[in-house]
Amino acid sequence: MGSEPPVRAGAVLDIDLGAIAENWRSLAALAAPAECAAVVKADAYGLGMEPVSKALAQAGCRIFFVASLDEGIALRRLHPQPIEIAVFNGPLPGTAREFPAFGLSPVLNDPGQFEDWALVASSKGALPALFHLDTGMARLGFSLREFDAFIARGLSNSMPWRGFISHLACADDPGHPQNDEQKQRFTAARARFPACTASLAASCGIFLGRDYHFDLVRPGAALYGVNPQSGNSNPMRPVARLKARIVQVREVDRGARVGYGAAHLMARPGRLAIAAVGYGDGWPRSMSPRGCARIGGKRVPVIGRISMDLSTFDVSAVDPSLARPGAFIDLLDEEYGVDRAAADAGTIGYEILTALGRRYHRIYRGFEG
Amino acid sequence: MGSEPPVRAGAVLDIDLGAIAENWRSLAALAAPAECAAVVKADAYGLGMEPVSKALAQAGCRIFFVASLDEGIALRRLHPQPIEIAVFNGPLPGTAREFPAFGLSPVLNDPGQFEDWALVASSKGALPALFHLDTGMARLGFSLREFDAFIARGLSNSMPWRGFISHLACADDPGHPQNDEQKQRFTAARARFPACTASLAASCGIFLGRDYHFDLVRPGAALYGVNPQSGNSNPMRPVARLKARIVQVREVDRGARVGYGAAHLMARPGRLAIAAVGYGDGWPRSMSPRGCARIGGKRVPVIGRISMDLSTFDVSAVDPSLARPGAFIDLLDEEYGVDRAAADAGTIGYEILTALGRRYHRIYRGFEG
Repeated sequence: MGSEPPVRAGAVLDIDLGAIAENWRSLAALAAPAECAAVVKADAYGLGMEPVSKALAQAGCRIFFVASLDEGIALRRLHPQPIEIAVFNGPLPGTAREFPAFGLSPVLNDPGQFEDWALVASSKGALPALFHLDTGMARLGFSLREFDAFIARGLSNSMPWRGFISHLACADDPGHPQNDEQKQRFTAARARFPACTASLAASCGIFLGRDYHFDLVRPGAALYGVNPQSGNSNPMRPVARLKARIVQVREVDRGARVGYGAAHLMARPGRLAIAAVGYGDGWPRSMSPRGCARIGGKRVPVIGRISMDLSTFDVSAVDPSLARPGAFIDLLDEEYGVDRAAADAGTIGYEILTALGRRYHRIYRGFEG
Repeated sequence: MGSEPPVRAGAVLDIDLGAIAENWRSLAALAAPAECAAVVKADAYGLGMEPVSKALAQAGCRIFFVASLDEGIALRRLHPQPIEIAVFNGPLPGTAREFPAFGLSPVLNDPGQFEDWALVASSKGALPALFHLDTGMARLGFSLREFDAFIARGLSNSMPWRGFISHLACADDPGHPQNDEQKQRFTAARARFPACTASLAASCGIFLGRDYHFDLVRPGAALYGVNPQSGNSNPMRPVARLKARIVQVREVDRGARVGYGAAHLMARPGRLAIAAVGYGDGWPRSMSPRGCARIGGKRVPVIGRISMDLSTFDVSAVDPSLARPGAFIDLLDEEYGVDRAAADAGTIGYEILTALGRRYHRIYRGFEG
């Protein structure tokens, strides 16, 4: 399982495809009898659309969601039909006819996209589209006014539909009143698309309860180990582990200034390890000064500012045989996952994942493709 | 020059290689008679090491710096010798003999790297190394104590050297006393390496004055349009322009909540444009709520939280013929460059650049390779 990284790999991103598959299966079990899709946009949240989608397909996933037409085309090249691929952003002007050409189902987000699509919906290869109603997010999707006009004109019956979807704005906060409001609007509106697969919940929505599941759920973040129930313990298996090699270890005196801007003052003498990871690898600069890493399970704080290619940690309390050039320092592990890293960086686990950089040596484990 | 992006490109990153070449020439002129290298680590600060390094080589650059061995190998495949390539992080344990194999000059950052290198320094293909003295950054480089011991043991005469370098911690702040302290330490120490190219200044250091130039300057950020003199007007030409297509335009009522967490409340009715760019593209989530973009030169603020694939802007004040699906919204342009974006996102222009994502359609202009 996995392989040893080359000695020249400065930082190693270890991705557990088995954990992704297991996360998908546990979400599918939780949502059943609703069907379970998988969201693999943004290069499968930074983890690699190709290996991730193959592991998910082998686990049993038959419907994938991506954001853009380009992502849909790339995914289609990996998975022949009958694997279904839906494109959240729908057809940009001038692109509708590319959807049939690649066997992609567009999400139609407004009357303009519907009109563009109507011109090609009967083309060879055209698959039924998904209708997107905005129930309170005010991002993509038909407004309630546009929806009423659409229904009044009888357009919902003008073509077959693959799905009727909406998206929750506050599902990460189970107590937020907008969840129930959106669900009620969605329930009322879906009656106008009675024969059609209804889908409201993404990762967090699945955990709001059975009445949010409808016919299809669409997890993304939870597949990749992000906690879909903030405040509660994480029911998902961790997926991404990240470690960086120590380039140099240095002794510093009391009163020494460390890093850019001389931002850190050593209050006592100490030993610093400089590791081959920085914001140029997507390890956020905002991780300084709250961030930390671990060596042999022992916490080592970030010292001074994270720079483009290097980060500095205080390893004074670590056995020097562990904190030495060439040894690894753990940035993401079982104990300190994407959600804790995100809290220290002032963002969300989703952004920690999508920022994962290209310089990492990547190891994929837990799946034989 | 350049080409029209395909209609399906959601966001377009336009990189002016001519401006990079011109920035290099103006820095080289400013630093002359010191020689001018170029730093192209982190994929040339996110802009693409291959096209950027080719444009710089054609402009006359003969010495490139990268961070890691892997980057050095990739760059060597693009540029045969006598183009010189130096690797800042030096040899990680077990990798020293790869430097001669690829014609790379290591920077030696501590006694351990020196010992590793001494074993291969006389190998076929081995090029002289660069000695890195830490003069006050406390990141990579020999400490002053290690340096004194190194000199006392006569090791500075044990092999030929390509360079003697250090790095300034506070060069972005011309009034910081540490600049002069580091320069004085550097000046004193370089006397021990008299026949060797001395180099202290990166982008900001070049603007601290002639006595910071020594024999070689090593600009990175300034080549790519980052202001090397914060507080003063930017002497560099802008390099990166970024624009994203509008996917949908929607009317929203007073009192409507917008985006994740229902974080934005509309104080009056308005019109919103949802554009195909988000933190999954490296457009930082921290850009909400201060960030903005422009349509036809008119400022349009970010509304609510930036999401993975989409950002929402208030276009109420923009002519609807400009703010329509398929039209572009400008995220980085002449007026609002990487430094202003960084200020709104709470980071530095360097991180705005290195985070630039893979989903962008990239247009390179201003250079015929």
